[in-house]
Amino acid sequence: MRISLGLLFLAMNLAAFSQQNGTENLVQYVKPIIGTQRMGHTYPGATAPFGMVQLSPDTDTIPYETNGKYNGDVYKYCAGYQYDDKTIVGFSHTHFSGTGHSDLGDFLIIPTVGDIKLNPGTADNPTSGYRSTFSHNNETAEAGYYKVKLDRYNIDAELTATARVGFHQYTFPKSDNAHIILDLMAGIYNYDDKDVWTFMRVENDTLVTGYRQTNGWGRTRTVYFAMSFSKPIAEYGNENFDKKQAYHGFWGKFDQSKNFPEIAGKRFRAYFNFKTSEGEKIKIKFALSPVSTTNALMNMRAEIPGWDFERVKNDVQNAWQNELQKITIQSQSKEEKENFYTSMYHAFINPITYMDVDGSYKGIDQNVHKADGFTNYTVFSLWDTYRALHPFFNLIQPKRNADMVQSMLAHYDQSAEHMLPVWSHYANENWCMSGYHSVSVLADAIVKGNTTFDAGRALKACITTSSFRRFDGLGYYIDKGYVPCDKTGTSVSTTLEYAYDDWCIAQAAKKLGDTKVYNEYMKRSENYKNVFDPSIGYMRPRYSDGKFREKFDVLSTNDQGFIEGNAWNFSFFVPHDPASLIAMMGGKKKFAQHLDSLFTMELPDKYFAETEDITRDGIIGNYVHGNEPSHHIAYLYNWTDQPWKTQERVRMILKKQYRSAPDGLGGNDDCGQMSAWYIFTTLGFYPVAPGSDQYWLGSPAIDGAVLHLENGKTFTIEVNNQRHRNVYVKKVLLNGQPLNRLYITHSEIMNGGKISFYMSDKHGK
Amino acid sequence: MRISLGLLFLAMNLAAFSQQNGTENLVQYVKPIIGTQRMGHTYPGATAPFGMVQLSPDTDTIPYETNGKYNGDVYKYCAGYQYDDKTIVGFSHTHFSGTGHSDLGDFLIIPTVGDIKLNPGTADNPTSGYRSTFSHNNETAEAGYYKVKLDRYNIDAELTATARVGFHQYTFPKSDNAHIILDLMAGIYNYDDKDVWTFMRVENDTLVTGYRQTNGWGRTRTVYFAMSFSKPIAEYGNENFDKKQAYHGFWGKFDQSKNFPEIAGKRFRAYFNFKTSEGEKIKIKFALSPVSTTNALMNMRAEIPGWDFERVKNDVQNAWQNELQKITIQSQSKEEKENFYTSMYHAFINPITYMDVDGSYKGIDQNVHKADGFTNYTVFSLWDTYRALHPFFNLIQPKRNADMVQSMLAHYDQSAEHMLPVWSHYANENWCMSGYHSVSVLADAIVKGNTTFDAGRALKACITTSSFRRFDGLGYYIDKGYVPCDKTGTSVSTTLEYAYDDWCIAQAAKKLGDTKVYNEYMKRSENYKNVFDPSIGYMRPRYSDGKFREKFDVLSTNDQGFIEGNAWNFSFFVPHDPASLIAMMGGKKKFAQHLDSLFTMELPDKYFAETEDITRDGIIGNYVHGNEPSHHIAYLYNWTDQPWKTQERVRMILKKQYRSAPDGLGGNDDCGQMSAWYIFTTLGFYPVAPGSDQYWLGSPAIDGAVLHLENGKTFTIEVNNQRHRNVYVKKVLLNGQPLNRLYITHSEIMNGGKISFYMSDKHGK
Repeated sequence: MRISLGLLFLAMNLAAFSQQNGTENLVQYVKPIIGTQRMGHTYPGATAPFGMVQLSPDTDTIPYETNGKYNGDVYKYCAGYQYDDKTIVGFSHTHFSGTGHSDLGDFLIIPTVGDIKLNPGTADNPTSGYRSTFSHNNETAEAGYYKVKLDRYNIDAELTATARVGFHQYTFPKSDNAHIILDLMAGIYNYDDKDVWTFMRVENDTLVTGYRQTNGWGRTRTVYFAMSFSKPIAEYGNENFDKKQAYHGFWGKFDQSKNFPEIAGKRFRAYFNFKTSEGEKIKIKFALSPVSTTNALMNMRAEIPGWDFERVKNDVQNAWQNELQKITIQSQSKEEKENFYTSMYHAFINPITYMDVDGSYKGIDQNVHKADGFTNYTVFSLWDTYRALHPFFNLIQPKRNADMVQSMLAHYDQSAEHMLPVWSHYANENWCMSGYHSVSVLADAIVKGNTTFDAGRALKACITTSSFRRFDGLGYYIDKGYVPCDKTGTSVSTTLEYAYDDWCIAQAAKKLGDTKVYNEYMKRSENYKNVFDPSIGYMRPRYSDGKFREKFDVLSTNDQGFIEGNAWNFSFFVPHDPASLIAMMGGKKKFAQHLDSLFTMELPDKYFAETEDITRDGIIGNYVHGNEPSHHIAYLYNWTDQPWKTQERVRMILKKQYRSAPDGLGGNDDCGQMSAWYIFTTLGFYPVAPGSDQYWLGSPAIDGAVLHLENGKTFTIEVNNQRHRNVYVKKVLLNGQPLNRLYITHSEIMNGGKISFYMSDKHGK
Repeated sequence: MRISLGLLFLAMNLAAFSQQNGTENLVQYVKPIIGTQRMGHTYPGATAPFGMVQLSPDTDTIPYETNGKYNGDVYKYCAGYQYDDKTIVGFSHTHFSGTGHSDLGDFLIIPTVGDIKLNPGTADNPTSGYRSTFSHNNETAEAGYYKVKLDRYNIDAELTATARVGFHQYTFPKSDNAHIILDLMAGIYNYDDKDVWTFMRVENDTLVTGYRQTNGWGRTRTVYFAMSFSKPIAEYGNENFDKKQAYHGFWGKFDQSKNFPEIAGKRFRAYFNFKTSEGEKIKIKFALSPVSTTNALMNMRAEIPGWDFERVKNDVQNAWQNELQKITIQSQSKEEKENFYTSMYHAFINPITYMDVDGSYKGIDQNVHKADGFTNYTVFSLWDTYRALHPFFNLIQPKRNADMVQSMLAHYDQSAEHMLPVWSHYANENWCMSGYHSVSVLADAIVKGNTTFDAGRALKACITTSSFRRFDGLGYYIDKGYVPCDKTGTSVSTTLEYAYDDWCIAQAAKKLGDTKVYNEYMKRSENYKNVFDPSIGYMRPRYSDGKFREKFDVLSTNDQGFIEGNAWNFSFFVPHDPASLIAMMGGKKKFAQHLDSLFTMELPDKYFAETEDITRDGIIGNYVHGNEPSHHIAYLYNWTDQPWKTQERVRMILKKQYRSAPDGLGGNDDCGQMSAWYIFTTLGFYPVAPGSDQYWLGSPAIDGAVLHLENGKTFTIEVNNQRHRNVYVKKVLLNGQPLNRLYITHSEIMNGGKISFYMSDKHGK
């Protein structure tokens, strides 16, 4: 199905469905403010599920560097908003959710009254520019709706959004001097040369169109817009901040800075003037397109034909209700519900829809393509999301996940390198992090039978991707069985990740009956053994000549051959073969003790400072929940004789790492990966090795849940004798029959039925 | 008809037609080298008639400024080539023909052997870079074909082109170190910030695609390409000349400078390496598109499916033959034939086809449009070309001219200002020069009945254009009847041009029966009277308060209220009502004397220096043929009692201003306007006031001619008793009947027939 009628009508149907279903209002439990303080890197603004527009306040615009020196604070503003800030610069239309690197922040709008100021000003001295002070007391953040009072201007700002259109509603005081500022230079991860080109046309007195091309994290990224005002513009203008331009005949013929309808340049900001009466609302519809201003306008007309702000807000909240109620949980705790449904909300933001209502999108080859039979998505933070988010989609959003695979295959087809995406956004490959984890997502979908796409073509894409010798040490890996530490800085973690990815390819090949590929990649999947140093019991950097590196600190994350993790944590990274890992590390008992140490040791202070992307709270002993490579570790007790320790640890992690508060996330949410971990773990099981059909049991943290599956079936999670201290699972029944293993399979869930957990405060064997 | 099968097949048909017709080979008379020395600003390279590709050698790449100071030499290189230069930098794919301002020069290619150098080097020290010395002895320039030996490398370079594809053929010596350099920074009118963005993909070992976006004279201009090699690339690479780029994950994962298939940035140059045997030919097909790399490839496949260089060369020369033979002339003089057919050639270069083979093109709104039922053209140098070139097209290329009008109407529809083009190229309005002369082109087509377009829509576009008050003093003109000299620098010439343009609108309205518009614009057309100072007998700058400016020099072109002309010349600019002008200037006798002075006076030296765009040879007395405002002046004797002086003067101008030599043009050819003047005048008549259906008689300079009209009819020009000294016309018969007036009408020509001139060395009355 192609989304062609806009979210509006879709949402109306869903609202009807929701009412029929008689489900509780779940939108009330979504707290977008969770994670906006410190390291969560979420944003509080308005977005539709998987929507192209993320309309959200930015509380500062930090340049990437000041006087040629990298500005560390830029990292804080990955999502544009930090809860502790006292000013709002404006509301921009694109944001990543929870990332550890940044971009976007396009098309910042702020309503003002008084003298026109066309620079943002500073947090310390907001009146030097256009930004406004605000208070959290006057702030409301809901799924699909955000409201704040801009104290300086006495303007109430309200935001909502459909998939492709941001909808602003500003309530002004009486003023002869009211303005809408459109800052076309503002952006996240901004630096001097980020603005490549900006183009704006005032088509008539209520319509403005244009585009912005940036060279940021995405190297060649263009976003087109159409902006419609509910009230005619009285006059307008702009200031050009570019150093200079070539001669054009404009000079002498026109004053381009005022009421001239076609502006283009590297850097400029525009304003639109109005007279307002007391309490007058000026509304703005701001539509995006990856392709053209014509298509942006088409998207606007399709998704928000009128000016009824309340209706659009209700529609998008109904759309959220429909997504949230795919899992209904039982819990006495409001905070638990808030944590759960906010996690669901965060899981359903990225990847985003990246095509117009007619299916047009820009490919990585910079040509315009049409998505034929699928919704095209972008923002693939795959190093994070292959772990739990895509498996979660395979379970609860299988249609979308299959479309995401199709989007990745389109990327592969259009890629000059003939590779599946590594970390891609907006028709760009940013090559971030390591591995080729697309293959995990493809294999997981194939193994679980969620293939509306051509599985043979997908397997071929996996093989081609894993054969591109010039990619990040891959040639060495293929030849030697490991990436030598004299060739790349992250040689060990990359070797481990390649080995896991290769196992995924083998699983897909097996499912598709290709024994040759299966055997070849199963062999490659054992390459993790080549970086294990039995003399110390850890994975360890190894030179091209086969020798292990001497200088080596298993606790340090600095230049030890690993990315976002130390040897201690990364040595557990054999998710596809824990049994062999355990044998290699000395057997079950020793391994369980080793795991115990991880969670309980006291990490010397000096190591905290060098741990990326997380707050101190994000570390438990030496276990770093805020960094993804550890996400499966707590479940590894299941392969020892002490599975009850998995149950204990995961309940402890849930409690320590997720709270319903602005600082409720201990690390970057990473496009929903942290949230997906929370959801799985709260429900009582987790996909330790995507590409397998097994979900390994933990300890459900709620009183029960029902999964409303896309195939029409339901899978019920019954939790008996649930209490805070009853973290241990005494017994499990599947459809009334005792379950004599520590995992359930994908098909057992998809077939519908019931799993019953019996909880206890004492662990069994 | 939409051109959809490519020039190839069209050309084949035309070749067949030509053979049937039994016409002499006219391509032999085309000397593209004419005008390449000094001020002609033509280029010698290969282009198809009205083709999108102009593949031509550039002999220097002058930056717009050096150390922040404007570099005067940039003007010399409007067409990239100056005959006196000793080195060729390379061959680029886009060139204006004959302009006085510049842009383009996209995608410069040069074949080299030996060490790779990725900078152009200097004329004084070519070996410091990649450029090569060359000699005119080893140079051949024909219509659609160019050949030169690159002495430094011992490489023969041959170029030909279809409408959308440049075809290179390089004959190499034996070398293990042969290269094709693709300079993606080279350009005409280059300055530091011209390069906005450049994108390149090596799709496979014979195909490269990409695009280049520049901020030059065209502010937002993007050209897409597809480049195909006849031999697989052995290896490739690039050097990035940009200051820096933001972090992308490339770093550490890839060496982007060598064999990495996707490069993007502000400024880089690429190379492709080969091994060649002695005499081995490497061929390159280089296709352009205004829209996408996909479409560039489509254009390539449609227009040059194979690799037969000779065949493509023959096809394009057949296409030229077909255009040239639309007028066959009789002349004993080879030089006259060369002047004539080179003028035809230069007239049929601009405007250029600006759409893909499927009709797609980029509009001025930066959206992709499809030309529905017409060929879309760009490069409208209208201040020049409305005078004689478009009237010439109305006569001999009516289909193309109507399509050009459609292209201008599409521009109007897509323009944010709702104006017809002023000077437009490649989806940009550069606003160059003055007036709104599009209306002349539209009115001329309407009045002459050459309307495949909606004439009512065209009239509406003219009216809207002439009503945009904020354009270049137009509001003042509408209110006061003239542009005050305290408001713009070219107040007088602009007033005169507006008045003429308004008369054109009136003529179109009359033809379409709109009396109200006719009356209104006829009134506006008299506004030239408002800047005439009867006390001195010249047009003169006037202040807002109605007073004429005191400080005023009728001979100077510097800051006197005129553009490209002094008061002396511009005071004759009432082409639509010479009779009234004559009365205003004191009657026929005084006016004729005044004209005599113009052609015979001795202009003090100091005024030469300030005369733009022409060589000293371009000035006859105080008459400046190289600047267009004078082009009708010699014909004004027809309104006095001394029409024989028109005959005398035009023959003299033809002789002095046009020669078959590199320096054969005394001023910029201006996209064919100078050439169109030559053609009309040589044939014996000239459109003094486009928008009227009258061609005023001069003195035919050849022995006879036949116009092969598009409607299938022929119009024969018979010249009796032609000799060099027989410049006077004794008698004229039209279809055997004496012609008792000094003009013929458009329909008299289009109906077919014969005009007979009887020449004499003595003037009659």
